[in-house]
Amino acid sequence: MRTLTVGLVERSYPIYIDSGLLDKIDLLLSVLPNKRAVIVSNTVVAPIYLTKLKAALERHGVRCESIVLPDGEQYKNAESINTIYNALLAARSERGTPLIALGGGVVGDMTGFAAATYLRGVPFIQIPTTLLAQVDSSVGGKTGINHPLGKNMIGAFYQPVMVLADTNTLDTLPDKELKAGLAEIIKYGLIRDLPFFEWLEVNIEKLLKRDKEALQYAITRSCQNKAEVVGRDERESGERALLNLGHTFGHAIENGMGYGNWLHGEAVAAGTIMAADLSMRMGWLSTQDVVRVRELFVRAGLPVISPNLGVPKYQQLMGLDKKVADGKIRFVLLKSIGQAVMESAVPQTLLEQTLEACCE
Amino acid sequence: MRTLTVGLVERSYPIYIDSGLLDKIDLLLSVLPNKRAVIVSNTVVAPIYLTKLKAALERHGVRCESIVLPDGEQYKNAESINTIYNALLAARSERGTPLIALGGGVVGDMTGFAAATYLRGVPFIQIPTTLLAQVDSSVGGKTGINHPLGKNMIGAFYQPVMVLADTNTLDTLPDKELKAGLAEIIKYGLIRDLPFFEWLEVNIEKLLKRDKEALQYAITRSCQNKAEVVGRDERESGERALLNLGHTFGHAIENGMGYGNWLHGEAVAAGTIMAADLSMRMGWLSTQDVVRVRELFVRAGLPVISPNLGVPKYQQLMGLDKKVADGKIRFVLLKSIGQAVMESAVPQTLLEQTLEACCE
Repeated sequence: MRTLTVGLVERSYPIYIDSGLLDKIDLLLSVLPNKRAVIVSNTVVAPIYLTKLKAALERHGVRCESIVLPDGEQYKNAESINTIYNALLAARSERGTPLIALGGGVVGDMTGFAAATYLRGVPFIQIPTTLLAQVDSSVGGKTGINHPLGKNMIGAFYQPVMVLADTNTLDTLPDKELKAGLAEIIKYGLIRDLPFFEWLEVNIEKLLKRDKEALQYAITRSCQNKAEVVGRDERESGERALLNLGHTFGHAIENGMGYGNWLHGEAVAAGTIMAADLSMRMGWLSTQDVVRVRELFVRAGLPVISPNLGVPKYQQLMGLDKKVADGKIRFVLLKSIGQAVMESAVPQTLLEQTLEACCE
Repeated sequence: MRTLTVGLVERSYPIYIDSGLLDKIDLLLSVLPNKRAVIVSNTVVAPIYLTKLKAALERHGVRCESIVLPDGEQYKNAESINTIYNALLAARSERGTPLIALGGGVVGDMTGFAAATYLRGVPFIQIPTTLLAQVDSSVGGKTGINHPLGKNMIGAFYQPVMVLADTNTLDTLPDKELKAGLAEIIKYGLIRDLPFFEWLEVNIEKLLKRDKEALQYAITRSCQNKAEVVGRDERESGERALLNLGHTFGHAIENGMGYGNWLHGEAVAAGTIMAADLSMRMGWLSTQDVVRVRELFVRAGLPVISPNLGVPKYQQLMGLDKKVADGKIRFVLLKSIGQAVMESAVPQTLLEQTLEACCE
């Protein structure tokens, strides 16, 4: 088992990464002192893992409620949060009773936001079951929901008390979602870890074949990168924004195409290609660098061409980004492979060229 | 001007108490570095103070948006929060743009919750215009909304960056609301400040006559008490719960009678009488103590008899209290005047006697 710590003074918490963690119920029991829990999952994950987890907890005397939400980014909204609130209130769930998120990023983000706001905050445990959630969304405390006018517009920074990444849950993950997770893994290499990017260039096929050792290594290295950044800048006042490489473009794609039509990781992949292209036009990446980046995403089976929403629509949607300051879009770009920077002084003509070059 | 500090390490903030603070715009400007702000108010307060405040800020080059909500506890709900989110998104309000709550406790609680959750948190300034908000709800970072199943069930602990209590705003406050504020002031004396309780016994009529000096003293002393408690226990894991004297019964009254029919302070007054009565039955307060407490509330023009919801309804509603732990209602009771305690081991018969004795 690999154990990492997200260091946040009084709110530090462990991340455990291993195969078969869902069967090692003692880790979970250590954060359920009152022997009560509410598990939030979705219609896809629940049939595979919920009954098993609930039964295991109940065997150890934990009283469990469960809430099963519809699956998909299009349900990451206020209505689903209300479903959680109503169920918690109907069950008279108390301040000391943790919520357990069992599922992918959407389940984690919504469960975390419900935990942050129910009774002004209850404990929260992440059990991510997708690769994307294991390497990114379950770590760092970003929680929230989408609003018709923008992705993750409503939310809170709220840290879990524990993250349990059981790599066995990846066995049942559809290929499309496995690939979507690879987009966020590649991102860590691009923004701050050139040796990891080079490792990925050698091992990407192993990850696609779900080689257990390779997956555990990639997940651990991704979480290490994320934990380091989050530990230094929890609330994204600086460095943490770099983790959003590809996300300004990506959120515009997700929103513009309708939530749920592109997977988040797919949109981030296409968005990262746009960021790389723009970085080249800024004079930072070479053409060869952009080819090298595109190549890895292609090998990972991820989209590298963005939908043609038109320049005005992209600009309008990107203007809704949370990183906008003083009316200016702040882009995460690449100075080189392995070194991301924030940049708001991007000439309009270069941006238009990138949108032109990267859209179908 | 009286200045206090709520000491919370990296999130400490000042409380300014004075007459005419709304005209001293420089204090406010110091927390508007980007010269942008969104003011949230309601239909009663906006006509009196919003135009003036907005004009003053705009004269200093601050770009202001404003959002005016309907007035009343019955609008402290998810729909109003959505109104705020929609307006913020339509105005493309950014992470660095503070929300200013201009109004009473309902406006402050909702604006604070919107600030806590819009873009995962934006800065937040409290300008309380009611006595209740000046002595209680604007200080300490409790934000939230009601749910059909219980008061303040959804919310967050989220501290403002500044509290500006302009006692001139109390000139336009209806008598009924002034009295409601006195309930929370008396509460501080009861739970932890016997000398202040004694001062109130001498000066309650001055406060009712809106004597400026007396009001400023009472507001400052109340905020001092609150700041001390919040500084030691921000998230209500212990001592802070004592500030809820009268609130477990009071919330049941508010919910049972329909939000907006009893003012919060009125419900807290009647609820505090119930808590005092129960404290007597527990053998802690003397009959004379209870008479003395009731007397002060009567002189303050506050209700001391609770509506007759019936024992089962009271128990059901109190069971929804956020302080419930392991299924047990945790009461805030009085060991003596000036010393509150938490107690969950209250015999059912005593509780029934109190409900019997204190309801109409």
